[in-house]
Amino acid sequence: MTEVCHAVHAYDALRIRFARIAALEEVASILHWDTSVTMPAGSAAARGEQMATLAGLSHQLITAPELAGHLDDAEERAELLSADDRRNLALMRRKQLRATALPAELVEATARATSACEAAWRTARRESDFGAVAPLLAEVVRLTREQAAELSAATGLAPYDALMDGFQPGLSDARVAEIFGPLEVALRDLLPEVLERQAALPAPIPLAGPFPVEAQRALCRMLAERAGIDFATARLDESTHPFCGGTPTDTRITTRYRTDDAAQAILGVLHECGHALYERNLPRDWARQPLGESAGMAAHESQSLIVEMQACRSDAFLSWLGPRLHAAFGGDPTPYAPANLARLWRRVSAGFIRVEADEVTYPAHIILRWRLERALIAGALAVPDLPGAWNEAMKTLLGLEVPDDARGCLQDIHWYDGAFGYFPSYTLGAMGAAQLFVAAVTAVPEIPARLAEGDLAPLTSWLRTNVHAHGARYGFDELMQAATGRPLDPVVFAAHLKARYLD
Amino acid sequence: MTEVCHAVHAYDALRIRFARIAALEEVASILHWDTSVTMPAGSAAARGEQMATLAGLSHQLITAPELAGHLDDAEERAELLSADDRRNLALMRRKQLRATALPAELVEATARATSACEAAWRTARRESDFGAVAPLLAEVVRLTREQAAELSAATGLAPYDALMDGFQPGLSDARVAEIFGPLEVALRDLLPEVLERQAALPAPIPLAGPFPVEAQRALCRMLAERAGIDFATARLDESTHPFCGGTPTDTRITTRYRTDDAAQAILGVLHECGHALYERNLPRDWARQPLGESAGMAAHESQSLIVEMQACRSDAFLSWLGPRLHAAFGGDPTPYAPANLARLWRRVSAGFIRVEADEVTYPAHIILRWRLERALIAGALAVPDLPGAWNEAMKTLLGLEVPDDARGCLQDIHWYDGAFGYFPSYTLGAMGAAQLFVAAVTAVPEIPARLAEGDLAPLTSWLRTNVHAHGARYGFDELMQAATGRPLDPVVFAAHLKARYLD
Repeated sequence: MTEVCHAVHAYDALRIRFARIAALEEVASILHWDTSVTMPAGSAAARGEQMATLAGLSHQLITAPELAGHLDDAEERAELLSADDRRNLALMRRKQLRATALPAELVEATARATSACEAAWRTARRESDFGAVAPLLAEVVRLTREQAAELSAATGLAPYDALMDGFQPGLSDARVAEIFGPLEVALRDLLPEVLERQAALPAPIPLAGPFPVEAQRALCRMLAERAGIDFATARLDESTHPFCGGTPTDTRITTRYRTDDAAQAILGVLHECGHALYERNLPRDWARQPLGESAGMAAHESQSLIVEMQACRSDAFLSWLGPRLHAAFGGDPTPYAPANLARLWRRVSAGFIRVEADEVTYPAHIILRWRLERALIAGALAVPDLPGAWNEAMKTLLGLEVPDDARGCLQDIHWYDGAFGYFPSYTLGAMGAAQLFVAAVTAVPEIPARLAEGDLAPLTSWLRTNVHAHGARYGFDELMQAATGRPLDPVVFAAHLKARYLD
Repeated sequence: MTEVCHAVHAYDALRIRFARIAALEEVASILHWDTSVTMPAGSAAARGEQMATLAGLSHQLITAPELAGHLDDAEERAELLSADDRRNLALMRRKQLRATALPAELVEATARATSACEAAWRTARRESDFGAVAPLLAEVVRLTREQAAELSAATGLAPYDALMDGFQPGLSDARVAEIFGPLEVALRDLLPEVLERQAALPAPIPLAGPFPVEAQRALCRMLAERAGIDFATARLDESTHPFCGGTPTDTRITTRYRTDDAAQAILGVLHECGHALYERNLPRDWARQPLGESAGMAAHESQSLIVEMQACRSDAFLSWLGPRLHAAFGGDPTPYAPANLARLWRRVSAGFIRVEADEVTYPAHIILRWRLERALIAGALAVPDLPGAWNEAMKTLLGLEVPDDARGCLQDIHWYDGAFGYFPSYTLGAMGAAQLFVAAVTAVPEIPARLAEGDLAPLTSWLRTNVHAHGARYGFDELMQAATGRPLDPVVFAAHLKARYLD
């Protein structure tokens, strides 16, 4: 009986400690928003100190010896706990293992190296001068490989898997290979067909601006409300790099308004709304516990893309949206015809830049980065050889000759900022979105008809029950299994692309 | 040599720990601003948890046994430290003593009691129903007396002094009595003379609105810049209750715009600018150390009032401001004549409400509260007897019959929120402002002429050197001594009032 009490007490103590850590992370999230949206430009230095203090305290809390002791005690009698509590406990251990795995000096050295590298990258990209940033990137890669080795030793995962696990728990390189292999083959055949078919259609007519910021803002807010965002506990603001931040009960979506391009803000906000709904619908009973978090970055991206790509770029939704856009912006109604909007916003074109890519060519960009980053982490690719390897892969995957490194290996911040193992999540998310959408429509056949009325509720309601409410109960494939009846299946995504672009 | 190293090491360790605590306080300050200005209305519950977590961690850091050990070690060989470091060490000890003095249960019970009492007070004030909140206030008073007793035991100060010390370090009831005694006498004679003289002057002509919010905002921003606020590291926003928050390198001033009253925002922003300049000019070398903080709440109020009351309501400044206001708002120029602005914004009138009081009658409101709160803390006045005591004092001090408790003992939030010992700071600050202004003008005779050009720089530059740069090096009287050559002297304030209202 004493031992039982001891184990239960240990788990309760863990719940309190993790809630505290989560509250600190909420604070950091609000400060991050403040940094991007409201902080005066000259106040960055003090903010850096504040963020470092919060990170240091979180790290101190999670690596405290008492916490490790509580984990040991609770695990010893884990059979006393419910299945959810056992999962929560396992997620606690995962966080603690990852936090304690990295020596403080390594974390600090990496923070310094990525900070220097990221700053140099901004100039290097502007001047398309990879040589200027290469030594700094080499140092980031060296330290990241050290991190991967430490994480590997602590978790038993392979080094690159241990990095991916930091973004999408449970993801492995072998599983990514299993998914990206057939996907690459399918897309290689699909792309020429799509381009041929597209060439036979009328050319899309661009929307004629200018698009007044006030009209865009009102439209974005209305669309966010349609998507289910309640502004009693949410904000919509502007920042240079749009994101969805805040906390589950205090959503902070940002966007950027360009008077010559309304699509960026409109589709961007819908994308962020997908992220926001996930966070807002996470299980409240598990708030501030590891189980109450999202299932990972691939799962998160599936939620932004199911709203943006699957629902809001569908013919059904565009048929509702077109007239609303015209009402907001006026002018010639022709470009707002749903068929034209579809041709405009679903235009396929092989290009150099990932963030400008359509959903047919996007996976090639990710497959390229996945191949190169696993080689960098394995030590099979040296940083000086990166541009050559990049350009060769671009030629193979999309048939393009990269004209300069700015449009090649310098385009994304990720590696220069130390994020290795993140890229696969984008395409896994896109694939997951397609698979979830099929399952949702099968379960709730009225979804397309309701989208044609501008009503996302039947879809988001299904997502709430089948995805959001699970929190981190499942890994990505298990979540797909629970929600759609099978793990992620490349065939479903290929079928979606065929249906949308060839039928 | 080892012992020396030990002591130096201990002090260095303390500096690091206090910097960390200060960074957490900065975080709390930014979150406080966010709560008041940007947070969605429905997100308060999570914010409460976040703030409680930050407060709990700060408290845990300052009460940690290692920190007490470092204090002991550093104090043992304090002679090794510079005078400033010794002062910094003493301020560290003061903070640690005050934090450790209060048992966690007492802190929590007080937080709960004040939270309940404050909520009930909002209704009670609206309905002028003291009886409805009296039992809750009695509980707050009971717990505050317990706190005072604990703080007294830990610091050796008398109970009420220990509470005042939390707002203005070093302040004592005896010193307040010494200052307020002659002040009360002086004001008793002065008020009828001022009112008589005022009655002989033309009645002030009110400024005719409406005052568009955009024009007010532009004006407030321009005035803040004139006062020396650089918006590269500052913001001006709106909130229900105006305040100056943020951090020394990230100033967050708020105000409230009413289209029927421009004075509130204009004079309010100038007031907050005085607070902001103090924080911004605190010694950077002592950033995040106790010595790098302000000298206390009386000192702080002296800085807001020297800008608002001494400088910006002076004839010189009003002669510059009047035409600018008229240019901003248009309409009949007559009310913007400097002499009319002076009569309008320096109108003296005995009223019931402290926050609406002029500078001649304001001290009476404070003397009243000081008398009653020291009696409440001493146990000499029971909460049910508060309305009677209040109304009697109001009759004695300002000759007014209080018509209801809403305009009496229910008007201020302070006590209902657990703030006892704060009120004296307001009037000490007003007196300090007058004394500092005389010293500044004596040292820099061009100050009035420059104010007549709308230029506050000579004044604020003197304040930076003689007040702000000292941080918490001195207590309030010592600061006055250093800056003006003598401790706070009631004669100077009385002379200021005579010069402004009778000459």
